[in-house]
Amino acid sequence: MTAALTTSDLATLAQLARQLRVDSIRASTSASSGHPTSSMSAADVLAVLAARHLRYDWDQPGDDRNDHLILSKGHASPLLYSLYKAVGVVSDDELMTGYRRFGSRLQGHPTPVLPWVDVATGSLGQGLPDGVGVALAGKHLDRVPFRVWVLCGDSELAEGSIWEALDKAAHYELSNLVAIVDVNRLGQRGPTELGWDLDAYAHRAEAFGARVLRVDGHDLSALDDALTNAARAEDRPTVILARTIKGRGFSEVEDREGWHGKPFPEDMAARAIAELGGESDLLVRGPVPALEPVAGATPPAETDPAIPPPSYVQGEWVATRQAYGEALKALGSRRPRVVALDGEVSNSTRADLFAKAYPDRYFEMFIAEQQLVASAVGLSVRHYIPFASTFAAFLTRAYDFIRMASVSQANVRLVGSHAGVEIGADGPSQMALEDLAMMRAVQGSSVFYPSDAVSTAALVDVMADTEGISYLRTTRGAYPVLYDADEAFPAGGSKILRSDPSDAVTLIGAGVTLHECVLAADQLALDGIRARVIDLYSIKPIDSETLIAAADATEGRIVIAEDHHPEGGLGSAVASALLAAGSERLRLAHLSVSELPGSGTTAELLNAAGIDAAHIASAAAGLIEQSERAPRSGERVTR
Amino acid sequence: MTAALTTSDLATLAQLARQLRVDSIRASTSASSGHPTSSMSAADVLAVLAARHLRYDWDQPGDDRNDHLILSKGHASPLLYSLYKAVGVVSDDELMTGYRRFGSRLQGHPTPVLPWVDVATGSLGQGLPDGVGVALAGKHLDRVPFRVWVLCGDSELAEGSIWEALDKAAHYELSNLVAIVDVNRLGQRGPTELGWDLDAYAHRAEAFGARVLRVDGHDLSALDDALTNAARAEDRPTVILARTIKGRGFSEVEDREGWHGKPFPEDMAARAIAELGGESDLLVRGPVPALEPVAGATPPAETDPAIPPPSYVQGEWVATRQAYGEALKALGSRRPRVVALDGEVSNSTRADLFAKAYPDRYFEMFIAEQQLVASAVGLSVRHYIPFASTFAAFLTRAYDFIRMASVSQANVRLVGSHAGVEIGADGPSQMALEDLAMMRAVQGSSVFYPSDAVSTAALVDVMADTEGISYLRTTRGAYPVLYDADEAFPAGGSKILRSDPSDAVTLIGAGVTLHECVLAADQLALDGIRARVIDLYSIKPIDSETLIAAADATEGRIVIAEDHHPEGGLGSAVASALLAAGSERLRLAHLSVSELPGSGTTAELLNAAGIDAAHIASAAAGLIEQSERAPRSGERVTR
Repeated sequence: MTAALTTSDLATLAQLARQLRVDSIRASTSASSGHPTSSMSAADVLAVLAARHLRYDWDQPGDDRNDHLILSKGHASPLLYSLYKAVGVVSDDELMTGYRRFGSRLQGHPTPVLPWVDVATGSLGQGLPDGVGVALAGKHLDRVPFRVWVLCGDSELAEGSIWEALDKAAHYELSNLVAIVDVNRLGQRGPTELGWDLDAYAHRAEAFGARVLRVDGHDLSALDDALTNAARAEDRPTVILARTIKGRGFSEVEDREGWHGKPFPEDMAARAIAELGGESDLLVRGPVPALEPVAGATPPAETDPAIPPPSYVQGEWVATRQAYGEALKALGSRRPRVVALDGEVSNSTRADLFAKAYPDRYFEMFIAEQQLVASAVGLSVRHYIPFASTFAAFLTRAYDFIRMASVSQANVRLVGSHAGVEIGADGPSQMALEDLAMMRAVQGSSVFYPSDAVSTAALVDVMADTEGISYLRTTRGAYPVLYDADEAFPAGGSKILRSDPSDAVTLIGAGVTLHECVLAADQLALDGIRARVIDLYSIKPIDSETLIAAADATEGRIVIAEDHHPEGGLGSAVASALLAAGSERLRLAHLSVSELPGSGTTAELLNAAGIDAAHIASAAAGLIEQSERAPRSGERVTR
Repeated sequence: MTAALTTSDLATLAQLARQLRVDSIRASTSASSGHPTSSMSAADVLAVLAARHLRYDWDQPGDDRNDHLILSKGHASPLLYSLYKAVGVVSDDELMTGYRRFGSRLQGHPTPVLPWVDVATGSLGQGLPDGVGVALAGKHLDRVPFRVWVLCGDSELAEGSIWEALDKAAHYELSNLVAIVDVNRLGQRGPTELGWDLDAYAHRAEAFGARVLRVDGHDLSALDDALTNAARAEDRPTVILARTIKGRGFSEVEDREGWHGKPFPEDMAARAIAELGGESDLLVRGPVPALEPVAGATPPAETDPAIPPPSYVQGEWVATRQAYGEALKALGSRRPRVVALDGEVSNSTRADLFAKAYPDRYFEMFIAEQQLVASAVGLSVRHYIPFASTFAAFLTRAYDFIRMASVSQANVRLVGSHAGVEIGADGPSQMALEDLAMMRAVQGSSVFYPSDAVSTAALVDVMADTEGISYLRTTRGAYPVLYDADEAFPAGGSKILRSDPSDAVTLIGAGVTLHECVLAADQLALDGIRARVIDLYSIKPIDSETLIAAADATEGRIVIAEDHHPEGGLGSAVASALLAAGSERLRLAHLSVSELPGSGTTAELLNAAGIDAAHIASAAAGLIEQSERAPRSGERVTR
């Protein structure tokens, strides 16, 4: 329970808020970059929150009992960093010489390079969704009484992701989540859509299931009351709508357009600081978490496996999505911190197998893919091992969240089922044909595309221990198991399915096209052509060594077939790997889905796209025939 | 005004609704694929809408006065196609032998392969946002009194994009937009989040500014009243919440879980059809648009240019984003159907220059990138030429919409500013480093990345006449103008900035890295090394011929520098083009942003990423040195 405010407390808070404004101005002016006015509107909110309500041991940012503070309006970084000075974890010197400078941890928008930052923000509308994930962990897994405080801007309430977040926060009764909206009515280029219409915001937030409190965002007592009150919700998230003035505290810019994202010139900064009472070095710390250790706050030890890993027999037909569900369920038995989420298609992705086995560790996100990924990011902040699945095509819905998860250096596993034209009758809206390109382009990502149940199950285990963003692409239909149960599938590996010293051509596939490559090799063998077949289950990192050896062994003749658009997928990864290695005399035939597909059977669509066994065999034969014609120098090999 | 329902009308409607159900069952059972129960819940809604309210000349789908019907719940395609049979534009034979079959236009989810379909659906939560774009055109540009009817599922209301759509529909007072929600309470894997809680949906829709009507979705009279009423809203969109039963009409499956996306086996289908009264071939058409031609319904002729194209002088420093705004404004003068949209950053993308010149043709989407792209798609349905801009990084927020726009075969121009580490202090959350990969992987897309103001302005004109999804990447900072004002920049072209018969190496860049390539060439020249420099402003399509010639001329030595992650961008495009052409002895050095960047100055960050002039020159010298060492066969060239 927070004690009532005394006159002395109020004076301290007022001084702290002034200092936060002054330091926000000083930091941004010193950097000639940044958002002072967006910081000044929220300075009173943050002062009261940090000094009176945020339970946080600044010397122990890793303490599991700490509250979480997420700056969803990440451009107000000067304010956050000024708070770090006020609590004594960042020096004035670092603030003044580091802010937005090269090599500094005080970046333009906060990232977890700083120990007090959970998630990177700066793409608006993401901090609150991430916070929902953190609060999910607290309420339903950790059972630790921390609170999650998210400071939002008003502009970002135009993002649909905010409403996905509030919807899920209400659905999961996240009473430990408080969103504070800094309603300063001005966006980057002018007024926001709803201005100071707090009623409109309140109706929306209430309709989505939140408890709403309204407050004058510059009235310290009222803020203190609201924040005290916020911590008392029992079964719902709280949204505090704080009516504020952009640039508050400096009369020249208060509530004026044209000052977003602009530091004040030196002379203006001097006048602003003077108006705010000058520089200061107040040190203020708020409450710390209760000292008693909380049960469940430490990661549970690994338990004995009650569910054995799935076992498959070579030749048995199993869909990789099925193997995913079975492997995840088995993994969940061994690893209590594994959690799963899905976007209302768990009976298709087979995440339902995990959900049924561990209902307490499964979170249904319904059809809200942005929140699906954001929840996974938030759960990873609390050191869970989240696997989030949906149709591969619909992960495109969350690309900005995936990109930002990488900036957050979050450890998140994404699983996309029903990839490519292989799905058949449902048609192009459901066919992921750009997911490999999308996921490969994410910094530090790992991209896996297994072809059978054994490799899928192995890769699920690999992903559990893979840092960063990892992605598993699974397939709708069932295909034969190719490997022995004890085969290992490390990240960065590949498998050679067919190999002979007389190999004339290399066939590379993954997923459905690997099976087509095997069939093509059989066809080619009937014509006396030996083909090496490579299962490129790890697209990133890639097994350059095996690719180079194959290129060397088959005189540079390589056919790559992929159920993906031509750009950025398997073929692109192979080409880049071989070129980086300096392979010479490469003769690549790259088969992919270049036209817009329609509905049909798998066989019809693989054939129409030119990625089935017949096309692979034909491309291979074509490469060999070209070589036999012994092209003169300068002659081009075309497909 | 719709006339009151007679007893005879009601009987016809009831028979039509039964037929739509029967045909939905027949079509999906014949295909052994599809969603009969999701069709049956909405059959009464669609029967009343099509027979009584939708003003549509089925023989003239291109008539500008027609209402628009968008099936946001695209999986209910059997229902839509059954309606096409009932209005006489698709035969029973086509329905029974074409649905979900290879080569048929009756695909698993509707696409504009069909002349009556405006936009592809099937990724949920997109039909309503697209409809907002169509309605924007009708209300604010065409001034044609058509209505936009969007049939939504209840599950898809969990998508944030639905709320972005309603928010913008209310903001732009789209009284011509009616969303009908088929609240059948069952999703794919089980109950929806809100079930039949129509109050909850109503509160949300009202809070977002819509007028809400509730109706029993199986009461034909009540539906008729609601639809009549819906067309009378004056300043708001209307949301009709229709309480329905999934599988309605077949007692074995009504309101049962486990029947989503499952066709009935033959025997069940026979029982269902019997329960529904058997097969029929009723032909029913509803009202057609008023016969009078409507002013503004035909595209305005091109006007005389009042604003001349921007003119730049070689050597002048201009940011390409600035040139974009100036060129778009000039284009708008010549082409009255050019419209612009932006996501609350128009003062940064410089779309504000267009907005100020043509406020009636500019639509502010605030911070809602999904709706930004969806609005552009909807405007393109009405034959406008939309340019939608935001920071390049934030287009990732709309990737699913971009992907689906391609399936819709929409003609949409996207412009992303502030790309790459070039932006400097703002840090990684604002740095697009995967946009080229994302946009290249879109089927049929064009991807442009100009380096100076002249080429930017020229490409804006090119984009106006480019079909499909085209993307322009612009840069934050100002760089020297490189070209004469009359230089042409066709799609699929490139420019050779430096060339000599003695060129020893080729340097390829675009955007900021092209300027670094030019500087590198200057540095290399001091060491007596001549470098060819290529401006690869058109990344897709790509100028293979020039690349091949350069590779040949410089003995395969090529340095590619890009302000993008290593995967899927410029380097990937060049590698694929050269390998497809069969170029031999390639020695590529690919410089890109492989680590997570932070804040800093442009120069610091280009240097840290290894993509500045010094690194380019060093890589070029390294390639030459390696060649001079005359590697033995089998020796690898590494970077």
